[in-house]
Amino acid sequence: MNVESDVEKEVERQFQILKYGTIEITPEEDFKAMLRESILKNRPLRVKCGIDPTNVDVHLGHLVPYRKMRLFQDLGHKGVVIIGDYTAQIGDPTGKIESRPHLSSEQVKENAKNYMEQVYTVLDPAKTEIRYQSEWFNDVGLKDVIKWCAHTTVAKLISHDTFKNRLEKGTPLGLHEFLYPVLQGVDSVYVESDVELGGSDQKFNVLMGRDFQKHANLRPQVAMLLPIITGLDGAQKMSKSLANYIAVWDEPFNKFGKVMSIPDNLMVQYFQFVANMSEAEVKKMEAAITSNAIHPNEAKKQLATKVVSLFHGEETGKKMREQFESVFAKGNIPDDVDEATYTLNKPLIDFLGEANVLPSKSEIKRMFTQNAVTIVDGDKLSDPYLKLDESFNGKVIKIGKRKFLRLKLGN
Amino acid sequence: MNVESDVEKEVERQFQILKYGTIEITPEEDFKAMLRESILKNRPLRVKCGIDPTNVDVHLGHLVPYRKMRLFQDLGHKGVVIIGDYTAQIGDPTGKIESRPHLSSEQVKENAKNYMEQVYTVLDPAKTEIRYQSEWFNDVGLKDVIKWCAHTTVAKLISHDTFKNRLEKGTPLGLHEFLYPVLQGVDSVYVESDVELGGSDQKFNVLMGRDFQKHANLRPQVAMLLPIITGLDGAQKMSKSLANYIAVWDEPFNKFGKVMSIPDNLMVQYFQFVANMSEAEVKKMEAAITSNAIHPNEAKKQLATKVVSLFHGEETGKKMREQFESVFAKGNIPDDVDEATYTLNKPLIDFLGEANVLPSKSEIKRMFTQNAVTIVDGDKLSDPYLKLDESFNGKVIKIGKRKFLRLKLGN
Repeated sequence: MNVESDVEKEVERQFQILKYGTIEITPEEDFKAMLRESILKNRPLRVKCGIDPTNVDVHLGHLVPYRKMRLFQDLGHKGVVIIGDYTAQIGDPTGKIESRPHLSSEQVKENAKNYMEQVYTVLDPAKTEIRYQSEWFNDVGLKDVIKWCAHTTVAKLISHDTFKNRLEKGTPLGLHEFLYPVLQGVDSVYVESDVELGGSDQKFNVLMGRDFQKHANLRPQVAMLLPIITGLDGAQKMSKSLANYIAVWDEPFNKFGKVMSIPDNLMVQYFQFVANMSEAEVKKMEAAITSNAIHPNEAKKQLATKVVSLFHGEETGKKMREQFESVFAKGNIPDDVDEATYTLNKPLIDFLGEANVLPSKSEIKRMFTQNAVTIVDGDKLSDPYLKLDESFNGKVIKIGKRKFLRLKLGN
Repeated sequence: MNVESDVEKEVERQFQILKYGTIEITPEEDFKAMLRESILKNRPLRVKCGIDPTNVDVHLGHLVPYRKMRLFQDLGHKGVVIIGDYTAQIGDPTGKIESRPHLSSEQVKENAKNYMEQVYTVLDPAKTEIRYQSEWFNDVGLKDVIKWCAHTTVAKLISHDTFKNRLEKGTPLGLHEFLYPVLQGVDSVYVESDVELGGSDQKFNVLMGRDFQKHANLRPQVAMLLPIITGLDGAQKMSKSLANYIAVWDEPFNKFGKVMSIPDNLMVQYFQFVANMSEAEVKKMEAAITSNAIHPNEAKKQLATKVVSLFHGEETGKKMREQFESVFAKGNIPDDVDEATYTLNKPLIDFLGEANVLPSKSEIKRMFTQNAVTIVDGDKLSDPYLKLDESFNGKVIKIGKRKFLRLKLGN
């Protein structure tokens, strides 16, 4: 009896930890039954999440499901990361209004390698199984594809919002895009997943796995859907194409500054999903903010420090906070400003272009029109074609809010 | 100059012969250009037609495209028959209101063999190339399927009447059925067809071949669409499931009788598409019927004789006409009545069931309720459970219009 109630307690404990921050667990009862069996038989659950390796730059929105996977891992379960090297050739149509161009398999491989490097900032490698779709899809034939396709209907696919919207708007929808959810579903058969994690917009695709596992007489997986976090602008979802994201590969100081730029009303969401705080911690912080026990700016600095610490260690987190305060509060120059060499009479814009401070010359020009280029503790620079003379040697130029460059005269 | 005009004359001659009886040639100009090149370069056109080997029993409606193919062959071109051993696993969804069950590959192979045996009653084997889809589809992988599917759109497939109707009515439409036209289109790439023949309801599928050949940088094939002939009932298309068809394997006397049963207004269509008469012959016959220069019954007998002759030789054709006239005009018994042995006191219905005169006992019973079972030159038989005594020895029983059976007492 005691053992039984201990098991139930452990089921409930894991369930509560794992449920926190999810949008939906479907079906919840199946999930509890799985946890129970896992505990009784000491068999870790297999928790699947797919990567679409079309994009090298992983941002903190991408990491939300992987943070959940890490929670599973910390409870003894197994993370199964699917490198979608087949679906990447299609491109996830979810939320897309146009068909994607194809990627070569070499490109996909390189992308996947880079992607995993970034995801491992979150996952426990010892409890992670990496699987490539090509392991099973390289060997399938047309007969298999016909069989899979017979297990779903056109009506069902058309009912998917993404597809319905594109058909209604008349934007091209290639038949191959219907294969995306099919292949994602078939993956679940091959890896025998118990749980699949995904963003809330992935519900359709994740539920496909249940269907295909049922057809294969396997226990159907549980769908665990997680929120799509909002980008720095506080308006749209965090997305590479909207340039409102914090990337895993951003420099610590850049990460800190980006977090500081979010609107106050995003803070709680970020404490939870970006800074990965526990339910108790988030609640405490939320209460403190609401009751004005903590100043929003201080809360945001703690958030930024936490985010930087997660990726670069606590010491760097603290250091970035100090640097940020020194630069923005006191208008000073950060400690580790990059140095770039110029030649006499080089036009300022050419120098900045070669120093790669911004992705393009047109963006640099925009900084000039916004009066955002200045000599630190000195004048604004309004003429992009100003020729650099000896007086610039040793000066620090500030471009935008967070970019600094120390000039050095070369020969 | 003379050569050039000879070529044009030959193009026009072939064009007129081949165009006769078609519903549509798309695009007609491409077809003329193909004929021209074929004549100039002495390169036979490759004329494709696909077989869906799901059904063993070929009827005269199925043969319409093959008669056209034979015309091509007689002009020196090549017939390319595709055994759809992959698409057969899907089932042609055209005109179907429900999904078909799958067939095993063994079943498909056996069916294809039987099917070709029947089609060769029409085609010239020396100018026929038989190709199995499995020749190319056995070796394709998922990447190929993705690529093909990317070459067509969901909107296009949904625009196909068959698919649209089923979606609107909510009858199940499996995603695999979308692959049917795709595979049929890909076939044209592999066999490099110049022309594809099909029933007018096949337009969508046949035009797919053009699309896929264009994507493969091949000269796109021309679609040549042929009428769907009407069944014996004069109401619906000739079809196995409607039991209104003449089968290649029907006995000569049965073929004759079936042709005689068609309504008069079908005669011209049958002279053209079933009896395979030339344009001049059809026109002459049509004029004779219209002007009452020939009695409809005589015209129908000529039609039936022609149809039987096509499959069994002129002599059999003539013989069947004589037999038909002797039986129906004079109420006599045909020459070659099957004999069946009975034992004393066998109930009549059991005897008829064992003699296989009709596919099922319930159909035999229906004959009794329709008063269609008689002793020739004797009584109607109204009791299916009548016990056969010695007096039946040597008698001929007539069941329905055209079935005869001579009884012989066994021990």
